[in-house]
Amino acid sequence: MTDERPSEFELIERFFAPMAAPGAFGLLDDAACVSVPDGHDLVVSKDMLVADRHFFSHDPPALIAAKALRVNLSDLAAKGAVPLGFLLGLALAEDWQVDWLEAFSRGLAADAARYDIPLLGGDTVKAHGGTTLSVTVLGSVPKGRMVRRTTARAGDRLYVTGTIGDAALGLRLLQKPLPDWAIALDDAQRHTLIDRYHLPQPRNALAMAVQSHASAGMDISDGFVGDLSKLLSKAKLSARVKLDEIPLSSAARMAIAADPSLIEVALTGGDDYEIIIAVSPGEAEPFERLAGECGVTLACLGSTTGAGAQPLEIVDGEGRALSFNAQSFAHF
Amino acid sequence: MTDERPSEFELIERFFAPMAAPGAFGLLDDAACVSVPDGHDLVVSKDMLVADRHFFSHDPPALIAAKALRVNLSDLAAKGAVPLGFLLGLALAEDWQVDWLEAFSRGLAADAARYDIPLLGGDTVKAHGGTTLSVTVLGSVPKGRMVRRTTARAGDRLYVTGTIGDAALGLRLLQKPLPDWAIALDDAQRHTLIDRYHLPQPRNALAMAVQSHASAGMDISDGFVGDLSKLLSKAKLSARVKLDEIPLSSAARMAIAADPSLIEVALTGGDDYEIIIAVSPGEAEPFERLAGECGVTLACLGSTTGAGAQPLEIVDGEGRALSFNAQSFAHF
Repeated sequence: MTDERPSEFELIERFFAPMAAPGAFGLLDDAACVSVPDGHDLVVSKDMLVADRHFFSHDPPALIAAKALRVNLSDLAAKGAVPLGFLLGLALAEDWQVDWLEAFSRGLAADAARYDIPLLGGDTVKAHGGTTLSVTVLGSVPKGRMVRRTTARAGDRLYVTGTIGDAALGLRLLQKPLPDWAIALDDAQRHTLIDRYHLPQPRNALAMAVQSHASAGMDISDGFVGDLSKLLSKAKLSARVKLDEIPLSSAARMAIAADPSLIEVALTGGDDYEIIIAVSPGEAEPFERLAGECGVTLACLGSTTGAGAQPLEIVDGEGRALSFNAQSFAHF
Repeated sequence: MTDERPSEFELIERFFAPMAAPGAFGLLDDAACVSVPDGHDLVVSKDMLVADRHFFSHDPPALIAAKALRVNLSDLAAKGAVPLGFLLGLALAEDWQVDWLEAFSRGLAADAARYDIPLLGGDTVKAHGGTTLSVTVLGSVPKGRMVRRTTARAGDRLYVTGTIGDAALGLRLLQKPLPDWAIALDDAQRHTLIDRYHLPQPRNALAMAVQSHASAGMDISDGFVGDLSKLLSKAKLSARVKLDEIPLSSAARMAIAADPSLIEVALTGGDDYEIIIAVSPGEAEPFERLAGECGVTLACLGSTTGAGAQPLEIVDGEGRALSFNAQSFAHF
């Protein structure tokens, strides 16, 4: 099917202008103007997503749009930053269809409203081959308060939001052939895992708690084990985490019960977009209280200690250390 | 030739960290922190560039990097904004080589230093197929002073920087077969035109003059005629511009003398990255003086009047209106 494709300007007016910020001037100017609140720093992050590398080209376009925005929102959440706006770079597949773009922009607009992050601008071009997306997000924190990755201290408590491993297991369910363990899960459990792959749940509700109380934070994109190891090693710290304190969904537990080797997929597979937060003991009580008020589930994984033989040791119920072939998933 | 390709982290450390801003924390965090001066707005713009659409994949990598940054810098210049930093999204061609990336990052670092715009962050991934780039630039203006496209007033003087049409003619010289008119040019003239295609000369030196004195501004990316028409029509204005007042380089004049039909290529072909500025008569003298101090060449194209039958009329020496088949080049 071919259809009448709009020009770049018609396309901007029809699909993107409705979600634009006031300072974006209808997306008709060379640039957008953003007011950063006085006494605040700007926090900025950017991701690239390539079709059939970071998402499937046949994924529903609304989910592709939502994922592109949410993986960036997750970076803001981990830094304690409140969203100000985003820019979208879109290299459309050569065979793009108006229907695809309509569904894509509807998904994007829904998430822009949900997370209160207006569109500031961007660029739409035609790709050679498949779709490539680039989202840049802008947020703000009070001056000097951006929560960094490398600033955890010995004795800090380690927290993680939500549940770990669902997205990596969901990705396995989307690949061919369907793994044997899939039959151990009911439909609802399979959907839970697949949804977490398609639709990350960025923890922006926690941003104020992170900003006010965290000594370090990062989001988990490349796998829990590798990412927590990075947070620890850059701060010259270590931690010993009990396997049964790592939060898993009931769907993930069921999958791992059916195939115990999946624990490695869950802990190193990536695409979690949960956040790891280090909090000094004196800040733990107000941090937990504020997180509770935001409705974000937190698990405490114990505390950091000074540098050890390796930054992170994960131990089972008998105190035996687990070892993994790969610590994290390389998107590159 | 194949060679040992570094991991994403090695690649960041080796090629990109050296040009990173202090607030980018060595490019090892989820996000960068940017201080926008008190009393200033942020100005932000983003472009996508696709290999063999916006540049040739066999172009020297340093020139690809410089062009990607400069087309964005040009947007800041047109808005009167001073650069704060940039982010780079880089989807590397599947067959990328370390040598390519080394030359690319060297070109980028040279321009980041030249235009005093540090790297804040970004993302490096592997493309399916050819290279796709996305640059996001951040700049600042005093609050409420971003110069917009649509705010010219009747009676404003119209100025354009530099010379028009060189890049579009240079692009013709890079295409096969070599056009007949190429033999009318000497080597230096051919190089002048080709260089202007490869290496835009963004007018960031003029930013303070634009910020202080312009009533409207935009950069010319899609062609002089189409872009000036946009500036006029959105403000419900018109203008009559004499052909011999449009600034042309001696190389462009020589090409047009050899083939008079090239005037259309020069005025509608795009890739100029000069800027059009509207200035009220009372601001014209200080604007011209400040531009002179910055060393940026300006041509005055006359003044705007109220809305006419068409926003822009270009007339030759006998007062006859020129007409063009296409007003601008559609990159999309």
